[in-house]
Amino acid sequence: MSGKITVIGLGPGSLSQLTPEAADALQAADVVYGYGPYLDRVPARAGQRREASDNGAEIDRASRALTEAANGASVAVVSGGDHGVFAMAAAVCEALERGPNGWRELDLAVVPGVTSMLAVAARVGAPLGHDFCTLSLSDNLKPWTVVEQRLQAAASAGFVIALYNPISRARPWQLQRAFEILRGHLPADTPVVFGHGVGRAGERILIARLESAHGSQADMATCIIVGSSETRVLARSNGPALVYTPRSIGAFST
Amino acid sequence: MSGKITVIGLGPGSLSQLTPEAADALQAADVVYGYGPYLDRVPARAGQRREASDNGAEIDRASRALTEAANGASVAVVSGGDHGVFAMAAAVCEALERGPNGWRELDLAVVPGVTSMLAVAARVGAPLGHDFCTLSLSDNLKPWTVVEQRLQAAASAGFVIALYNPISRARPWQLQRAFEILRGHLPADTPVVFGHGVGRAGERILIARLESAHGSQADMATCIIVGSSETRVLARSNGPALVYTPRSIGAFST
Repeated sequence: MSGKITVIGLGPGSLSQLTPEAADALQAADVVYGYGPYLDRVPARAGQRREASDNGAEIDRASRALTEAANGASVAVVSGGDHGVFAMAAAVCEALERGPNGWRELDLAVVPGVTSMLAVAARVGAPLGHDFCTLSLSDNLKPWTVVEQRLQAAASAGFVIALYNPISRARPWQLQRAFEILRGHLPADTPVVFGHGVGRAGERILIARLESAHGSQADMATCIIVGSSETRVLARSNGPALVYTPRSIGAFST
Repeated sequence: MSGKITVIGLGPGSLSQLTPEAADALQAADVVYGYGPYLDRVPARAGQRREASDNGAEIDRASRALTEAANGASVAVVSGGDHGVFAMAAAVCEALERGPNGWRELDLAVVPGVTSMLAVAARVGAPLGHDFCTLSLSDNLKPWTVVEQRLQAAASAGFVIALYNPISRARPWQLQRAFEILRGHLPADTPVVFGHGVGRAGERILIARLESAHGSQADMATCIIVGSSETRVLARSNGPALVYTPRSIGAFST
């Protein structure tokens, strides 16, 4: 087979956070597959085709991209942030495994990007400076009981927690329930960072205390970081507070 | 204060994985602070000073950088990968909190990068495609008992696990002990990905089974990803195996 499929992470939003490697791979593609809003971010190139599909149609999108690559095209598949985190890279691998044996011979490359939690963390300081867990709150792909068990395990063990896919029209209550669970394991003043649309127009950062954090403070484009009992908030006179988790446990204990 | 301090993630190694935002921030700095091997990766600019320091001297390096910024310089502090993950961003925040009150007024910016686990994951497919934990194995900054508890909590709860700082001359046995603990919680054929120096000359990727994974397969420049019981290995005739974690639990159960 002469085709090629490249899965590309676009970064959080701004083109200034798109790596040169990703930009080059986008330029080289005959056709780009992706969720519409992500495709809109891809710099235009004459002669390059775009295949937009809906959010939620990941395996189907991956199968169509693999089919076209198997037919000889140079195909790019894009995700926002890093496609390796709850995104298209795993969908392409799964579609490849489920597809014809010939697909296993395809030239497949994966180009990483800056994932959302890193961009949100950078905006407020360094909340991911110590051990952390990264968890999708979507119960479309796993039972909600598993989400609850993982939240409890992560908070009890002292991990900072980054939450992806916190809320959607079809999943309106899960984030609020997650906060309730975490309040059973973490101090009331644990910082919660809501990062909406980081790197894009309309970016908003909100820092709350766990005791008053509410699901309504997030939307589909929000990535949330819940601190551990070690995470610190440092007020500043001329800017937003710094939120960071010291590299060492007990750094500020007396 | 007129100075500025910018903490910059250099990405895994290759300049093709350095974001334009990070490249611009590096160009704008009067002086760059960092661990020597990271400084060597920064593109040269006439008139820019470099302040190399040893690995392990993070708080001292951060304090010196903050002092110079407080004196009016435009200062960059660099880390490999993303400085927000077990690296300089938290050290700068901690030094700032411990320092003179005036430092809180400094203009501080944090520029994210592609962290090591994302680059390693991209090389083999998508092992981080489902919930995962990111854990430093260094017991310099936390008790080893905490590391063991976190490994057990993460594996029991079904998280994929990314391990940073797996081994060093002063910490020779910790990684092997971590594998022994994980063997108590995960199937023998759980894939373990060793990514050495990804994005740099001498890059090596090794895929092992947990039952035979050994600490001696890693060095200081290795990032390790241990799968969950859901993680799949897909042999390919014309390249290395794909390793990925399906987005949904039980994707391949009958």
